[in-house]
Amino acid sequence: MADWQYDVVGIGNAIVDVLARADDEFLKTRGVPKGAMTLIDDQTAESLYYEMIDLSNFIEQSGGSAANTISALASLGGKGAFIGKVRDDTLGDRFRDTIHYLGIEFSTPAATDSAPTARCLILVTPDAQRTMQTYLGACVELGPDDIDPDLIISSQVTYLEGYLFDRPAAKEAFIKAATIAHGGDGKVALTLSDAFCVERHRDDFLKLLEGHIDILFANEDEIKSLYRVDEFDEALQYVRGHCEIAALTRSEKGSVIVRGDELHVVDAEDLTSVVDTTGAGDAYAAGFLFGITHHLDLFDAARIGGIAAAEVIGHMGARPEEPLDKLIENKLRIKI
Amino acid sequence: MADWQYDVVGIGNAIVDVLARADDEFLKTRGVPKGAMTLIDDQTAESLYYEMIDLSNFIEQSGGSAANTISALASLGGKGAFIGKVRDDTLGDRFRDTIHYLGIEFSTPAATDSAPTARCLILVTPDAQRTMQTYLGACVELGPDDIDPDLIISSQVTYLEGYLFDRPAAKEAFIKAATIAHGGDGKVALTLSDAFCVERHRDDFLKLLEGHIDILFANEDEIKSLYRVDEFDEALQYVRGHCEIAALTRSEKGSVIVRGDELHVVDAEDLTSVVDTTGAGDAYAAGFLFGITHHLDLFDAARIGGIAAAEVIGHMGARPEEPLDKLIENKLRIKI
Repeated sequence: MADWQYDVVGIGNAIVDVLARADDEFLKTRGVPKGAMTLIDDQTAESLYYEMIDLSNFIEQSGGSAANTISALASLGGKGAFIGKVRDDTLGDRFRDTIHYLGIEFSTPAATDSAPTARCLILVTPDAQRTMQTYLGACVELGPDDIDPDLIISSQVTYLEGYLFDRPAAKEAFIKAATIAHGGDGKVALTLSDAFCVERHRDDFLKLLEGHIDILFANEDEIKSLYRVDEFDEALQYVRGHCEIAALTRSEKGSVIVRGDELHVVDAEDLTSVVDTTGAGDAYAAGFLFGITHHLDLFDAARIGGIAAAEVIGHMGARPEEPLDKLIENKLRIKI
Repeated sequence: MADWQYDVVGIGNAIVDVLARADDEFLKTRGVPKGAMTLIDDQTAESLYYEMIDLSNFIEQSGGSAANTISALASLGGKGAFIGKVRDDTLGDRFRDTIHYLGIEFSTPAATDSAPTARCLILVTPDAQRTMQTYLGACVELGPDDIDPDLIISSQVTYLEGYLFDRPAAKEAFIKAATIAHGGDGKVALTLSDAFCVERHRDDFLKLLEGHIDILFANEDEIKSLYRVDEFDEALQYVRGHCEIAALTRSEKGSVIVRGDELHVVDAEDLTSVVDTTGAGDAYAAGFLFGITHHLDLFDAARIGGIAAAEVIGHMGARPEEPLDKLIENKLRIKI
């Protein structure tokens, strides 16, 4: 067993989240598709941002799917690294500082003459669902040159965010990282990110899954969209054998984990409150990856994922507020 | 493939159900353990029966776990037979007439000088849960001599109700039937019936499972009790390999089916109303057995089970009110 410098390196969009509460009417009048992640241009981003300032529970904090996962991993006590593109502007510095503050390795050079640092405008409806409007800004600059081979080769898992598939250069970076990881003893993980993202890139994802991915994360909508089926169980049958491990999350139905012939049905944690589901999937991935990089069995890994997700669902914002390592120790009665 | 005279022969307690609505207080003041099946003597049965007449939604109808399953199977269009013991009294005749009316083969001779026909006093609380107090009456007379070898050998599946394990003679009948079935090409199925029943006979059930059972039905509490574990997933790992097929029901979480390396996670049906869960497990078993005796795949078999259970949950009483064959055709859009 190699002695890994990092448990997980995440590659994703470096985004600052702007969250606020909104009702369904707010979404409807602005033609925003509820529950999805939609890409928007700078003008829409600016006008929506100014509207959001007046809404309740307005928060700005570092986000981005893979970056959230690595942050939650750090909170669990894992060793994380991140690759993603910010601009050399105030938001970009803030994103970097937050990541560094958590002890995460992050040295992707900032863009110097691109659009500004990306932001994701997140509207949280009363049902705790999040609807995301993403202005990618500097993220579009991420390409193969940003993949540091030393970082990939010294990470036990390279974790890729499906949203990167929305841009050819990022996708190239994706494939490069996966190839480097597999040149060593590393594993490659992918999260499908969003059912609409799967819809946009289904064939590419399927090809990637066959050739490059060891560990797949998907929620129920995403995995059903990937295989174009109506029933979760059908998707489950397809995904077996398509990758080494699949961790399929089902909200209040918990998660289902497959590895070859092994299969686990893991219940969701009891939730004390459901405030905002933003980042729940990211936190789940963090817990699961923490578990498997620390050689726990799949059931315990999934439970850590579920506990991390429940913490994030209990408050506004995608990143854990409580130290997850303590939370896991209390809940599972194990020292991690 | 043999041309079977019967799809399923059920062996169980021949019981008339007496149902009424009661609140939790009613159970509490009488020291009745909620959600369980408890055996009571004739005096308790009589006094409770007279108290129940004054409660709302009072119903008397033929019941018994395996008999319910065979009745639901008949409603699906399956060919069923039943073995169980009534007394030659009014309730016993009524039980027999109901079974015959459904086209089910039932020729176990009635007891002539035993206690009267059994009844199960079922209290349905506002949460739709059922609590059962069973007076076994004539059922205790069932023994190996009542097992008609011709009936067993001409049935594709011999289905055993776990409650029979509460009496040595019935258990002997159980083993005899399983042995005859396996002497031919038949399969043997068992339902664990009740977590308290499992508690009472755990070692016997485990031994039976290893030696005699091809198809196991259990709900979540029962399977966790059988393996003395806290988590559903742990029980799931144990049961794999312990029998050919296990169908594990989880109420609103649906069911999980295992057959060797094959595993299905099947969602519960949407319920229009939850009135009374009495007989839900029996109806599920009927649907599932109908499916596999008609060579449907495990997913479809489980869905038919779920649809049958949902029908029974929607009204008072353990037996379907709607013809299940029509219901399945409408819901699954297949002709069965």
